[in-house]
Order: sequence, then C-alpha cells, then structure tokens
Amino acid sequence: VSRQGILIAIGGNEDKEGERTILKQVVERLAGGRMVLATVASHQPEGYFDAYRRAFASLGIDVSDELYIGERVEALNGEKPGMLADAAGVFFSGGDQLRITSQVGNTAVERRVREILSRGGVVAGTSAGAAVMGGTMLVKGPSHESHRIGAIHLAPGLGLIRNVIIDQHFAERGRIGRLLGAIAQNPRVLGIGIDEDTAIVVEGRMFHVIGSGAVYAVDGSGVTYSNTADSAPELALSLHDVRLHVLSAGDRFDLDQKRPLRPRD
Amino acid sequence: VSRQGILIAIGGNEDKEGERTILKQVVERLAGGRMVLATVASHQPEGYFDAYRRAFASLGIDVSDELYIGERVEALNGEKPGMLADAAGVFFSGGDQLRITSQVGNTAVERRVREILSRGGVVAGTSAGAAVMGGTMLVKGPSHESHRIGAIHLAPGLGLIRNVIIDQHFAERGRIGRLLGAIAQNPRVLGIGIDEDTAIVVEGRMFHVIGSGAVYAVDGSGVTYSNTADSAPELALSLHDVRLHVLSAGDRFDLDQKRPLRPRD
Repeated sequence: VSRQGILIAIGGNEDKEGERTILKQVVERLAGGRMVLATVASHQPEGYFDAYRRAFASLGIDVSDELYIGERVEALNGEKPGMLADAAGVFFSGGDQLRITSQVGNTAVERRVREILSRGGVVAGTSAGAAVMGGTMLVKGPSHESHRIGAIHLAPGLGLIRNVIIDQHFAERGRIGRLLGAIAQNPRVLGIGIDEDTAIVVEGRMFHVIGSGAVYAVDGSGVTYSNTADSAPELALSLHDVRLHVLSAGDRFDLDQKRPLRPRD
Repeated sequence: VSRQGILIAIGGNEDKEGERTILKQVVERLAGGRMVLATVASHQPEGYFDAYRRAFASLGIDVSDELYIGERVEALNGEKPGMLADAAGVFFSGGDQLRITSQVGNTAVERRVREILSRGGVVAGTSAGAAVMGGTMLVKGPSHESHRIGAIHLAPGLGLIRNVIIDQHFAERGRIGRLLGAIAQNPRVLGIGIDEDTAIVVEGRMFHVIGSGAVYAVDGSGVTYSNTADSAPELALSLHDVRLHVLSAGDRFDLDQKRPLRPRD
C-alpha cells in the first residue's frame, strides 16, 4: 500500500541559525532518509546549496546531492532524475518559479517527485519552491498595491496540491492584493499566503501551520460580486464577500472543506 | 432642520496635479462655501498649507485660512475655533493622528467640526486626517508584517464615524496585518483600510468609494476563533472567519449592515 507523503510549503526566508522550527520539521519528517536539494529555481545555484548544506548539517543530516537542471533535456532521463530514485525527500530552494516549472514540468524529475510522495516521503519548498506546489501559481504581480485587473501573471504549477494558489513572502511584501486578484479570476482555487519563516505542512487534504508568522487562507467561494471580467485593466479590483482566515502556529485547515480547525478541535 | 453633512476620508497621497478626482469631490461638495485647511496633525505645518492652497486654487477655490494649533489652549476658545464658525468645510492634512486628537479632542475646535457636519458641510481628511474619524484609531503598528498580539497602539479617535477604525496608505504600506490585529481586539468595529489616492465619501451610514485604488472593509462580526486574548505578545495572530470586501470606485457600503452594495444596486 502506498503511504501518504508530506508537503511542506515555506513562505521564504526560514530561520537557518536560531530555533530553525521549519527546517527541524523537514529533518524530522525525513526520519533518517536521504534528501536531495533541488536548486533548479535559481539561475546561480551554488550559493543556495552551500547555505542549505550547512543549515541541514547543523541539524545532523548530510545533504550531498544537488539537483540543478541547466537544460530541460537533463530532466527528461538519466542521472538527474535518477538522483531522486531512492530519496526520502526533496527540498526546492527559492528563485524563479518559472524556472522550476519550465525545466521540470512533465519530465522524469516531476514524476520522481510525485513518487517520493506516493512512498510516504517529504517534498519541501521555500519561496518559489512553495509557489510551484499549487495547480496554478503566481509568477508576477505588484507587491504593496491593490490589484489592478490584468496586472498579474499566472502560470500552471506542478499541481502537487490541488485547487490552491500559494503566494509567499506574504506580509513582508504586502501581497494580499495580488492574491485577491488571482482568486478573483476563479474562486474555485483557495489562495494561501505564507509569511516568511512560516510554513504549511500538508498531509492529505489537511495542513497545519508551523513557524513564526501567519498564513492567510483566502476563500472566494462565497463571492457575491467581482469586476474582474468586465472592467478595464487599470481599474482597481472590486470583490465582495471574501472569507479570510488568519492562521498561526498550531492552527489546522481542511483544504476540501475550506475550513480552519481550532487548535485543539 | 439640520442637513446631513459629508465626511471624506482619504488614504493619503491623493493626486494633486492630474485627474484630482478626490480633491474635485471635496470642492464640489463645498458648493462654493469657504474651507479651512487644518494642519494640526503636522509638526511643521507650513509646507502642507502651501501645497494644498495651490492644489485647491487650481480647482477654483481660494483657501486662505490655515488652522494650526501650537498649544491645546488655543483650541479651547477664541480665534482658532472661530475660524470654523461659518465655514462650509474643513480639510485635515496628514501627519501624526495623535497630534490631532490630543490638541483638539473635546475642545471648541472639535465642537465646531461637528457643527460643520450638522449644518450639511464637508469634513475631509487625508492620512492622519482620515485615521482620526473613527471612534478608535490606529496610532502605531508594524507595516509589512503579520500582526503580533500586543504590537499595535490604539487610541480614541474623534468619533465622527461610529464603530469603525480607519487605516490609510493601506496596500502601499502592507497594513492588512495591523488592521486585522485591531479588529480582533473587538469585532464590534469594522476595519476600513484606504489606499493612497483613494477615499470614502460618507453620507449618513453609507459610503461610496472614489479615487484610483481600493478600500478594504474588514468585518470580524462572524469571527469564530481568535487567540488575541490568550496568547503571548510575540505570537502571530490567529483569527478565523473574517469577512473581507475589496471595494473600488463606484462601490457603495452600508456601515450599519456591514454590507457592500453592487455598483448599480
């Protein structure tokens, strides 16, 4: 029987030297297994690998495998996807989410990532590495301003978590506007905004929050009015009756019901 | 019979040289009457007065009266409150909201401001001048981060609009976190976040939105869980089932029902 894997989506800039709550959670879930560090989101991967290697070494695990894809052809077969063959986990570092999806979308690397989940392993990602987990992802869109219709750029994600769109560096970069703009386009998707040094740990269709910040679940299911489709691109968004949940460490959330559970429910 | 006055709360940084939608609205509502410019929020008022004098002159009205209160005693009686005696409107420029409330709260100036409303006049304010309109106001609180319990500083406002708390420079400074933290303390108050170059025009218990950005109505009436009262001050906020309305130009809102109206309802 296939065990249920775990996804850990991190909002970026997780603590690497202090409490390290989130990285500890990754290590704990690996249960001694081997982890591959995927730096494919980055254009200059070397620095990320060393920083994470040191951070994970301080938590007692040796990360010696860096998965970097220079050209998409490397992701199709051979040595690179082979790195993931018996791994207990993979960690996607930050950078450009389009680098991840354009290089590994629909390749052997992506299949190997899904296999890690189906054998009960861990798929973690920070910043861009978190953004790609949804079926759709935000690629670009202004921070620190309200959404203008047509100002954001969406792309298909890896789809590891169904019916969600994940945004990161959330409070720090003032991104509520662009996430609202994204869910307005189709309220089927739940918007999940993750602060820095904060993560959601997804098991099946439940997640719980770890880390020092907040997670915003933005639910457009009950929206009664939106000007998304009928206005000029420079107009500000109008979107009535959004349901918003602010979640912090200990909170749990049911992705199918789109409902938070109180910490001790 | 007393006519119903109009409040115009502006999120700061309103356009003074281009379309000037918001300042035009102020001028239109004055209907040719005299307006006083209150620079009491500022510690160095001179610059504000000249900038607004020029902006309003370009719209055809001459603003010659600057209301600046150096010491609270000047607000108690005499020449300063007298400036407002037969004014059709007053415009509060930005600065420090505590300067406004500490200098004019419960003085003859405040009474004169209320009289302007009761005779059908206009009370407008931008940035700090908007923040003071609620019964409670946000004085300090971090931007660009999620709310930590205990991180914000509230104070009583002038109370010109009941049961609301107004925050400004809203998307630009990433202030959703602090406004959520404020309404979590007592969901009786509706949070209203106003973007720059954006305003609400309040008539009775209805408002409508003008300007280029968005207004966020944050309604905690239905909140099912909050950790506000029982957690340590450094913890991130948890707040389930907030109702959020994103409003833009043309949208109307009923402050008593806490409901948006579709643009053409």
